[in-house]
Amino acid sequence: MHTLKKIFTVLFTVMACGVVFAQSAKKPKYVFLFIGDGMSIPQRMVAEQFSKLTRGKGLAINSLDCQGVTTTSAADSFITDSAASGTAIACGEKTNNGRIGMNTDGTRRLQSSAEVAKAAGKKVGMVTSVTINHATPAAFYAHNVSRVNYYQIGLDLIASDFDYFGGGGVAQNNKTDDPLYKGDIYDLAAEAGYIVARNRAEFEAITPGEGKKVLASGAKNELPYDIDMGPEDIHLVEFTRQAIAMLEDGPNGFFLMVEGGLVDYMCHANDAAATIREVLALDECVELALDFAAKHPGETLIVVTGDHETGGLTLGFAGTAYQSFIQNLAAQTCSQEAMIVKFNGLQGKTFEEAKALVTECSGLVFDQPNQAKLGNLVLTANEQAEIQRAFERQFKDGGNDGHSLTTAVIKMLDNKSAVGWTSGAHTALPVSTTASGVGAENFSNVLDNTNIAQRLKELVK
Amino acid sequence: MHTLKKIFTVLFTVMACGVVFAQSAKKPKYVFLFIGDGMSIPQRMVAEQFSKLTRGKGLAINSLDCQGVTTTSAADSFITDSAASGTAIACGEKTNNGRIGMNTDGTRRLQSSAEVAKAAGKKVGMVTSVTINHATPAAFYAHNVSRVNYYQIGLDLIASDFDYFGGGGVAQNNKTDDPLYKGDIYDLAAEAGYIVARNRAEFEAITPGEGKKVLASGAKNELPYDIDMGPEDIHLVEFTRQAIAMLEDGPNGFFLMVEGGLVDYMCHANDAAATIREVLALDECVELALDFAAKHPGETLIVVTGDHETGGLTLGFAGTAYQSFIQNLAAQTCSQEAMIVKFNGLQGKTFEEAKALVTECSGLVFDQPNQAKLGNLVLTANEQAEIQRAFERQFKDGGNDGHSLTTAVIKMLDNKSAVGWTSGAHTALPVSTTASGVGAENFSNVLDNTNIAQRLKELVK
Repeated sequence: MHTLKKIFTVLFTVMACGVVFAQSAKKPKYVFLFIGDGMSIPQRMVAEQFSKLTRGKGLAINSLDCQGVTTTSAADSFITDSAASGTAIACGEKTNNGRIGMNTDGTRRLQSSAEVAKAAGKKVGMVTSVTINHATPAAFYAHNVSRVNYYQIGLDLIASDFDYFGGGGVAQNNKTDDPLYKGDIYDLAAEAGYIVARNRAEFEAITPGEGKKVLASGAKNELPYDIDMGPEDIHLVEFTRQAIAMLEDGPNGFFLMVEGGLVDYMCHANDAAATIREVLALDECVELALDFAAKHPGETLIVVTGDHETGGLTLGFAGTAYQSFIQNLAAQTCSQEAMIVKFNGLQGKTFEEAKALVTECSGLVFDQPNQAKLGNLVLTANEQAEIQRAFERQFKDGGNDGHSLTTAVIKMLDNKSAVGWTSGAHTALPVSTTASGVGAENFSNVLDNTNIAQRLKELVK
Repeated sequence: MHTLKKIFTVLFTVMACGVVFAQSAKKPKYVFLFIGDGMSIPQRMVAEQFSKLTRGKGLAINSLDCQGVTTTSAADSFITDSAASGTAIACGEKTNNGRIGMNTDGTRRLQSSAEVAKAAGKKVGMVTSVTINHATPAAFYAHNVSRVNYYQIGLDLIASDFDYFGGGGVAQNNKTDDPLYKGDIYDLAAEAGYIVARNRAEFEAITPGEGKKVLASGAKNELPYDIDMGPEDIHLVEFTRQAIAMLEDGPNGFFLMVEGGLVDYMCHANDAAATIREVLALDECVELALDFAAKHPGETLIVVTGDHETGGLTLGFAGTAYQSFIQNLAAQTCSQEAMIVKFNGLQGKTFEEAKALVTECSGLVFDQPNQAKLGNLVLTANEQAEIQRAFERQFKDGGNDGHSLTTAVIKMLDNKSAVGWTSGAHTALPVSTTASGVGAENFSNVLDNTNIAQRLKELVK
């Protein structure tokens, strides 16, 4: 293994014209760390291709100057969970699955890069599309033997005194049977001086100002999936914009972590279209950071990584061989979760009656099976029969036993788009880490997720 | 996209102790380029984990100082073939699938890094486990509108005047109906001054010497799979060792390309155990290069990449969820191809009679289905029934219609080891590129496979 732990690297970029730009040992005033939960290289690549085909441009996350492959395994498992990988990325030490900011046996608290930044006088912010006390953000401010102790992690959130928390809600905010219970987390946050916002009106009422601390929740738990969002829903990029506005007035700059937490959820569901939309939602936030960096030249560092791969996503499929039709995924109009709810309304209906809704949700076409060909969404007779069997499995004997129809429909769309999945869980595929700005050269050869924290801690202190 | 094309990077590594080592614009005298065909990040990672679990050590290919993620798409396809990716890696320009060292419309010859090295007075060698005129090596010395013009590519091999060719045989070496036919390629090579070796005795008789050129074939076509090799078979590492011996006496050093071509074949077959063995076979060659570099400090560059992903290999599987049992793959004793041949002998036998051979080849256990549990190779009653159905599909009505049994057995073993596959073709997953030695810093942020050739060409001229 690489032993760069105690080495500082300095990259001199010598241009062909002979001009030398020194990207030196200078430390960044403003640090952005973006984490796509479950966002490994296939997720970044499928979203890149989708964006190129449907919007004519690649992604900000894939355009940064420095990049590399980053391994993710936990101390006790080849396949990591988000607690162990979050702790590795936040604190720089391998731990067991389940631990939050603690060592393998849960006896020692680990210090995170965010805590180092806070101690160094930087303002600190945490933004996520899942619950704000979920494993990934928690690893930056909490210390608990188990990720499921959400209430206790909520207490750590308040104790952290970080300046901005935004995104999803506080999970188990009022778990009265927790042994450490001392009140509703939102109430305790308000008592501790946090401005608490729990809907769009309250969110929009927040204005920047000296010494203000914010806890802004856009939902009771995680945010809605980006593909399902309505006008009242608050997007990840809005929280990120507000976080920057709240943090940027500090004399020592800030450390802002933004998690695309719902990437993981939709990969668990093996839903490529909704996954892509979550990656694009995170990418919007990175675009915001690039805009910020352009206004603060020579002072900003942007790092983008993932905590693990989820779903065993592949950018090819047996049935499509060497061809690829990622643009087909644009036809899907809602997430797997929303589709399950919609399809529940089909109980008691015939398959004929169900077809229109399937088409509305997925773009799959039932008419004219003789028009079906590789690359379009027209279903062959066999494919129609497969969807029908899933319908009948789900709605047999007048009941509704789950989500066979949704699973079959999304699998059909994904496979016809040349995308495959092999798991409902995480996998051990490494992720990629990309970076640009002041100190980005430290992220050129990030071999392991612990390196991220090790190098960030040096840069923010 | 990144625009480093005309930029030279110089990395100064400043150690904590204050000593400065300049890894400067100095050019390497000896250049090794290793290409795993179909070897993307999952292939490297599964072999790494297998090696750690069964040999207690990681891989040389994953231990190099500099590394990054490298995209592979062809000019005309999101999913590349080995001709377009070989041309990109060799020549530095995107081309269409099928082209060898030619531009997209086949009207312009592209110069490869090997040709630049040859012109600069370096000795040049090409080693591969597949046929020596297969797409990947061909891209370094041939120029043809189509990869399937093997005979013409064979003529280009001779015309290249490269110093060493070793590994598999010359495909279609005596294709008398080729419009450019002028004799057997081996005979023409001998006439052109090549020492031609076509078996172990001839191979071992070759001795280094001024001006000697070699064409050494270990098989009529590709080498046997590493997992199937017997004592007479010549391993990839032996060709690599001989190549180094033949090339190292030149005053200007050498450029040696070594391809692990059979990684791809076993990924097309969705055979994880044989894939791993091919990655390990390539890794042995990289170990040899590291030994060479240790003897030639400050003069050697080692670059390792892949040309694309094959098979949609994933490091997790639905049935094993967060657990992983890669060590199970050690139980497989032959490649998918060899297994097909062995299982053909089961024609006319009962399934009961077939079981012993299945166990011998795969380690799957039929007795005591009540002992089956996650992580062992004991088959449950359902799994036994699945294997039996495959047996019956293959050997129905007294005939033998293919390789259903082999496919089912290997799929079962792979899935029980927490490995999945989604395709029999290539996928668009990026690969990783790693490097160490003089000039390795140029391979820290290799964003696209064309960058490899662009940077190598600068370093070898």
